[in-house]
Amino acid sequence: MDIDAANREAARRILDSTPVLVGIARADEVIPKMRRNLILHAGPPITWDRMSGPLRGAVIGGLIYEGLAADERQAVAIAERGEVEFAPCHHYQTVSPMAGVTTASMPVYIIENKATGTRAFSNLNEGYGKVLRYGAFSEDVQARLRWLADVCAPIAGAALERSGGIDMKSMIAQQIQMGDEGHNRNKAGSAIFARVLAPRLARAGAKSHDLAAVLEYLAGNDLTVLNPVMAACKATMDAGHGVPGSTVVTCMARNGTDFGIRVSGLGERWFTAPAEIPVGLFFPGYSQEDANPDIGDSTITETAGIGAFAMAAAPAIVKFVGGTPKLALESTMEMYEITVTENPAFGIPQLDFRGTPTGIDIRKVVKTGILPRVNTGIAHRQAGIGQVGAGLVRPPMACFEQAVEAMASQVAAKTQT
Amino acid sequence: MDIDAANREAARRILDSTPVLVGIARADEVIPKMRRNLILHAGPPITWDRMSGPLRGAVIGGLIYEGLAADERQAVAIAERGEVEFAPCHHYQTVSPMAGVTTASMPVYIIENKATGTRAFSNLNEGYGKVLRYGAFSEDVQARLRWLADVCAPIAGAALERSGGIDMKSMIAQQIQMGDEGHNRNKAGSAIFARVLAPRLARAGAKSHDLAAVLEYLAGNDLTVLNPVMAACKATMDAGHGVPGSTVVTCMARNGTDFGIRVSGLGERWFTAPAEIPVGLFFPGYSQEDANPDIGDSTITETAGIGAFAMAAAPAIVKFVGGTPKLALESTMEMYEITVTENPAFGIPQLDFRGTPTGIDIRKVVKTGILPRVNTGIAHRQAGIGQVGAGLVRPPMACFEQAVEAMASQVAAKTQT
Repeated sequence: MDIDAANREAARRILDSTPVLVGIARADEVIPKMRRNLILHAGPPITWDRMSGPLRGAVIGGLIYEGLAADERQAVAIAERGEVEFAPCHHYQTVSPMAGVTTASMPVYIIENKATGTRAFSNLNEGYGKVLRYGAFSEDVQARLRWLADVCAPIAGAALERSGGIDMKSMIAQQIQMGDEGHNRNKAGSAIFARVLAPRLARAGAKSHDLAAVLEYLAGNDLTVLNPVMAACKATMDAGHGVPGSTVVTCMARNGTDFGIRVSGLGERWFTAPAEIPVGLFFPGYSQEDANPDIGDSTITETAGIGAFAMAAAPAIVKFVGGTPKLALESTMEMYEITVTENPAFGIPQLDFRGTPTGIDIRKVVKTGILPRVNTGIAHRQAGIGQVGAGLVRPPMACFEQAVEAMASQVAAKTQT
Repeated sequence: MDIDAANREAARRILDSTPVLVGIARADEVIPKMRRNLILHAGPPITWDRMSGPLRGAVIGGLIYEGLAADERQAVAIAERGEVEFAPCHHYQTVSPMAGVTTASMPVYIIENKATGTRAFSNLNEGYGKVLRYGAFSEDVQARLRWLADVCAPIAGAALERSGGIDMKSMIAQQIQMGDEGHNRNKAGSAIFARVLAPRLARAGAKSHDLAAVLEYLAGNDLTVLNPVMAACKATMDAGHGVPGSTVVTCMARNGTDFGIRVSGLGERWFTAPAEIPVGLFFPGYSQEDANPDIGDSTITETAGIGAFAMAAAPAIVKFVGGTPKLALESTMEMYEITVTENPAFGIPQLDFRGTPTGIDIRKVVKTGILPRVNTGIAHRQAGIGQVGAGLVRPPMACFEQAVEAMASQVAAKTQT
């Protein structure tokens, strides 16, 4: 088995991907096998008893939103009795930030990879503060979710469908030239997204008040584009998955308890280990002790070669996650040592338009001891509170060591037969 | 006379400025003494016989737009017979890009410097291709100008007035963090501008079709924000003008024939010399031989410490004006040598958030031999054609030498009396 050739093939499929945002629909209308009593969550599989505070909070919020529970107490009882199913978003072609809770009647972005014809999905970004993805579930959180589903999604979905979609590869390329790394900083991308959508929204035939409210939603949130960017990365990395013998990481995701990775040539298996606690900058009134372990599917951005991997392009992010512009540059340079290729579509101006380091090789991680870098939001460790800061983290080395062992066993088995 | 103290005072007034975009109105309704038979143009004063092709083209277009001439032949005859007045935009608190032709019934952005209570104005950006500011004057150019005045300006003006305005200092600060230098690259700023205005436009009560057209105009032009940025720089530098003894340059502008500067402590006098021809990248079908000498009021951006002075923040611009990301960094570093202060509001991420070099000192220019750098669009040298490229240029040294001599004479005169 020629691992290098397999990795070249995986890299080719990743670089050839052309993710396009084509629309918005109810999750159970577009995600295969999505159903009402199924709660999707971020990261690798996990049971209720092992879930961290913010994931439990988001599950409670999701059960209430779906009408499966009337309040927190009922929701906890349903979860404890096993009356609801849990599954990773990743098992359903979906990625959602932080807790990642996505339920049947929530709206999701639809991304199509035009190179493969496959799809990926992500929920809509709620904005800042007390939000479901950070484990808050109060009535204002519910009201915002209902507005997203009932008002925002139909208008934005109609606008997207009529326009033929938004090329997310071009979007990310522009972001990299405008100081975004596509994970924790999506300010330029969200501005471009709002600007491109605005005239299409105006032609979607919505009521004037609703149109203005949707435009206000787009104007007031610098993270709007994170969710379609994540789904674009998911569609891209799914294309690179399943190449026999490839040691390229196609998924990194955290559920707030475990960090899990999947590898192109190692099937659907997750390699997991306890998630680290991010170190970062905290909002007034909060500190490092409030931080939950690493959580969210948003590491799909680093997996696809942006986020912390493209930090050289986003020096201003250090004001949000900590560090210096020099660290931003070093972060990207270090990631070239553990990746198999560079993405020429995402040229970093600060590095003379060198492509972002793309395709983490589990062998290089174990050999060099260099772990992938991750930029991330930080959730409060208790349910119901929300975001407390943003910072930097790395996955546990054990994930990569297990994966290398699994690949070695697979190679050995093939050699014997 | 303590020149250094005078320059500190000029710098203080410049850095304290808080330009806010408060509205849009007809030029003759808000610009003092603006009138129908007065054609404002970019740069220092010039007569018709000395005007270059693109400025003549824009004057022809302005006369037709204003109804003062029916066609090109009539317009030329009126100009030749001296039946219309010409004056620099700068004499009327106004700055407009390239040819800069601004006439009585055109809409203008209104900028208020909240620190001083003074105003500055700029026309609206027409977009790309065959446009008045590059010397084109055909019927499609006229139609676009009429749409800007009749449809776009009333809606956008109402949206701005209702909203309390847009803080342009904060806008430029964001641009510097997002890869714009504010002169030739205004992509992030124009996206933010569109995004901030969109919900306000939706609440301005416009017809649905007109609203969509205005949103399309904002979505389709990466230079929309250049004009209010220029007016913000003008309001800022006007605040620094008129400090006795100050050798800080408060205006640099070109009319396509001459480059002119004005100096804080030297009154309303222009110091001029023949404009250089920019060197840059050309659109397909055009070359260096087609380039007109340097033209436009947009050098107010460099005068205020952005544009080429902030190029370190905008490495991606080299794909448009030529050069390498290293040149972008060096451009900014060099400008620190000829300026009196740094603007902490405009922190450059690539330089650890060091403020942009601000306030050109004519003494430092002459002493070091380092001329200010300028990023610029390039017009075809013939009337009626339009933009042919973009590039880099510097002012002639003679402007600065004359100004230093004038300051020396003034100092000598004061010492004698």
